[in-house]
Amino acid sequence: MTPQLPSPAPLRFGANYVPSSGWFYSWLDYSSDAVRRDFADLAEIGLDHVRVFPVWPWIQPNRTLIRQRGVDDLLDLIDVAAEFGLDVCVDLLQGHLSSFDFLPSWVLTWHRRSLFTDAAVRDGIAAYVDRLTRAVATRGNVFAVTLGNEVDNLWPSNPTTPDASTAWAAELVEVVRAAAPRLLGLHSLYDATWYAPDHPFRPGDAVDLGDLTTVHSWVFNGVSAIDGPLGPATTSHADYLVELAAATATDPARPVWLQEVGAPRPDVGEDDAPAFVRRTLQAVTANPSLWGVTWWCSHDLDRGLADFPDREYDLGLFTVDHRIKPATRELAAVVRETRAGRPVPAPRPALVCDADLRSRPERRAEVAPGGAFHREWVRLREAGPVAIVTAARAADAAYLAARGIDAVLAPA
Amino acid sequence: MTPQLPSPAPLRFGANYVPSSGWFYSWLDYSSDAVRRDFADLAEIGLDHVRVFPVWPWIQPNRTLIRQRGVDDLLDLIDVAAEFGLDVCVDLLQGHLSSFDFLPSWVLTWHRRSLFTDAAVRDGIAAYVDRLTRAVATRGNVFAVTLGNEVDNLWPSNPTTPDASTAWAAELVEVVRAAAPRLLGLHSLYDATWYAPDHPFRPGDAVDLGDLTTVHSWVFNGVSAIDGPLGPATTSHADYLVELAAATATDPARPVWLQEVGAPRPDVGEDDAPAFVRRTLQAVTANPSLWGVTWWCSHDLDRGLADFPDREYDLGLFTVDHRIKPATRELAAVVRETRAGRPVPAPRPALVCDADLRSRPERRAEVAPGGAFHREWVRLREAGPVAIVTAARAADAAYLAARGIDAVLAPA
Repeated sequence: MTPQLPSPAPLRFGANYVPSSGWFYSWLDYSSDAVRRDFADLAEIGLDHVRVFPVWPWIQPNRTLIRQRGVDDLLDLIDVAAEFGLDVCVDLLQGHLSSFDFLPSWVLTWHRRSLFTDAAVRDGIAAYVDRLTRAVATRGNVFAVTLGNEVDNLWPSNPTTPDASTAWAAELVEVVRAAAPRLLGLHSLYDATWYAPDHPFRPGDAVDLGDLTTVHSWVFNGVSAIDGPLGPATTSHADYLVELAAATATDPARPVWLQEVGAPRPDVGEDDAPAFVRRTLQAVTANPSLWGVTWWCSHDLDRGLADFPDREYDLGLFTVDHRIKPATRELAAVVRETRAGRPVPAPRPALVCDADLRSRPERRAEVAPGGAFHREWVRLREAGPVAIVTAARAADAAYLAARGIDAVLAPA
Repeated sequence: MTPQLPSPAPLRFGANYVPSSGWFYSWLDYSSDAVRRDFADLAEIGLDHVRVFPVWPWIQPNRTLIRQRGVDDLLDLIDVAAEFGLDVCVDLLQGHLSSFDFLPSWVLTWHRRSLFTDAAVRDGIAAYVDRLTRAVATRGNVFAVTLGNEVDNLWPSNPTTPDASTAWAAELVEVVRAAAPRLLGLHSLYDATWYAPDHPFRPGDAVDLGDLTTVHSWVFNGVSAIDGPLGPATTSHADYLVELAAATATDPARPVWLQEVGAPRPDVGEDDAPAFVRRTLQAVTANPSLWGVTWWCSHDLDRGLADFPDREYDLGLFTVDHRIKPATRELAAVVRETRAGRPVPAPRPALVCDADLRSRPERRAEVAPGGAFHREWVRLREAGPVAIVTAARAADAAYLAARGIDAVLAPA
C-alpha cells in the first residue's frame, strides 16, 4: 500500500505575545495603544495569530473574586488583535512565565494548597477557566484556549502525582469544551513530559487531552550541547518533538502544534540565528502532523527588569523599541515561502521506537536528546523526513499509511 | 520621691482601613469615590487617622519595577483622607493581611529567596521603602511609615534568624528616616514577639527600632480563653502589652502605639462587643505610655470573599454597606470622653518581672497569657493601673519616677 496523505491544511504561523513595554507586568497598567503598537509589528511580518497570557492572580486575587476589569482588559487586547487580522489563543493559568510563577495568595504560605490536588482550589480554577473561556469565546478571532502555559512548571511547588495531573487537566479541558465548544481546548507542558522518567505529567496527557497536541521546543534543554546552534540535532529538535508526539498519539491524524520554539542565546548566537530559524522551520514544516508554529516570542525584554534568566532578554522577534532582527526577516521569508503552497508530504520512513511513551512513561529517558534513539533519528533525519513509530504499531499497515510512512527501520 | 508625670499629649484614635468593597483587592481597581465613602464613615465617628495598606507585589511586581500608577493610587487615597481631616500612617510591605501573604513572584518558587536574608531582595525592598516613603512624605497629613504589617508573619515561609530579623528592620528603618526625617518610622510585629520563646523577632526589635513601639492586641491569642469576652484578663490585654512594651524599652518615656486592637468573634460575641470596647479602651487609655489606639478595622469583609478565617469577616466598625454597629457607637463615645481631657496619670504601683525580655528573649514564655506572672498582674490590675518593671530596674528611683511608679511589688 502506498501511503497517500490528504492535502494538508495551511500551516498557521504566529508569535507568543510578550509586551515590549513592562513585560506581562503591563497587565497592571493595561494600555490598548501599547498593545496596538506591538501587534502592528507582528502583522507586518505576515503572522496570522498570537498566543496571549493573562496573569491569573491579578484576575482572580481571591478564590471567589474574578475581576471584570481584568477580563475586560483581556477582551480589549483580543479586539486589538482583530484590528490587525490576528487570531488569538488565550492561555489561562499564568502561572509560569519565563521562570517566574504567579500564584495567588490563596494557595501560598498560610493557605498553601496544591493547585493540582486541593478540591477547593480546583473548584476555584474551574470557575476561572469557565468564566474566561466564555468571555473570550464571544470574540470571533479567538480560536483556542490553553489551560495555562507549561503548567508542569508549577510543580514541584504544587505537589502532584501522575494520576492527579491527568485528572486535573482532563477536568479543566472539559470545562473549556463545555464553555466554548467552538474553540480548541488545549493542554500545555514543557518537554520534561517527554524526556524525564519521573516527571508527574505524562506524554499521555499531551496526546490524549485537548483537541490537538502542543509541544514546546527549547534547544537549551541539552540538545544544543550535542552539536551547536546549526547542527542537525539542534535544528531538528522541533521536528523530533512533533514526531514523538505523533507517534505517541493513538489517533494517527491528531495534529501537533509547535506552540513554542525560539532561538535562545547563548545556545544560538545572534549571527547564527537566521540560519537556525530557517533550518528549524524547514525541518518541522515538512512534517505532515504539524498544525502550526508559534514563535517565542514577539518582543525582547527590557534589561532594566531584573532576575530573569539571561536567555529570556533577547528572544523577541522585535526589540523593545520595535526594531526587527535579521532572524525575524528570515522567519518572515520562510512563512511567505510556506504559505505559497504547503506540498502534499511525500511518504517517508519511520524509525521504530521500542518505548511506547504513552503506556510506559517510565521509559522516557530512552528518547531524551543525546541518547542512542535520538542520535540515530537525527542521523537518519539528515537525509530527509523520518517518522517515529512504536514497536507495537510497526506492522500495522493501515496505521502506517495514515501517517504517510512507507518503510519501517529498526534501530541499529 | 513622688513621681509626677508631665501632662500627656492628647491620645490619637484611628482605624485600620479595610476597604468595604473588594477588601485590599480593591487596589487593583482603585476608586477614589469608594475610598471617599469609606473615609466619610470614619470621620463621622470622630477618628483622627487611618492606617493604610498598599499591597507590595502589585506595586513592585519586579525587583526593579516600582509602578508609578501604584504609587499614585496610594497618594490619591492619602489625599482623600485629607479631605476628611484624617491623618495617615502607611504600612509598606504587605506582605501579610488577615492570613493572606502577598509575595512577589521574584521571591517565590524558582526565585525563592528569603526576603529577610537575601541581599538582592533586601536591596529591592530598600528601593521600595525609599521610593514610597519619599512619595507619601510629600503629603502633610501623613505622619508615619511602618515597614509592613506584622512582617513576622512572613516567617517561616521566609527563613530568618533573630539577628537577621533585627538587622533587616534596623536597615529599613534607617531607609525610612533618611527618606523622610519628618515622619515616624516604625516596625510592626504580632505578639509572638512578646510571648513565644523561639520566635525569631525579638522584643528588643519592637522597643529599640523606630520612633515608638507598636503593639497589636488580639484576644484570640489565648487570653480570651482565660476569662471570656468581658473578663479582666481579656479586657486588660491591650494594657498588658503596652506595659510589657514600656517595661522592655530602655527609654522610660518611649511611647507605645496600640496599633491594632479589635473585638474578634467568636471570642467576643456581638452582644458583648460594646462592653469589651469600653473596658479595653478605659484600661489602656489610662496608661501613661500610650500614644494612641487604632482599631482593627474600619469595615467588615464581604462574606462573598473566600478562605479568610471566620473571625476576619465581622471585625469592622462599619458593615460593608456602611451601617454603624453598637460597639462602634461605644468606641465613639469613649473617644469623645477621652478627648474631653486626658488626665495626668496618677502614680501607680509596678509588678516586678524577673525576665528582662530585651536581654533574655528566651524567657518570653514567662510573661505569656495564662502564666503566673500574667495572672498576678491581671489580679492586681482589677484594682487600678499597674505598671511592670524589670528586676534590674526595680530599685532605680529616677527610672521609676520617670514612669510614674510609686511602689514596687514583688511577685507572689
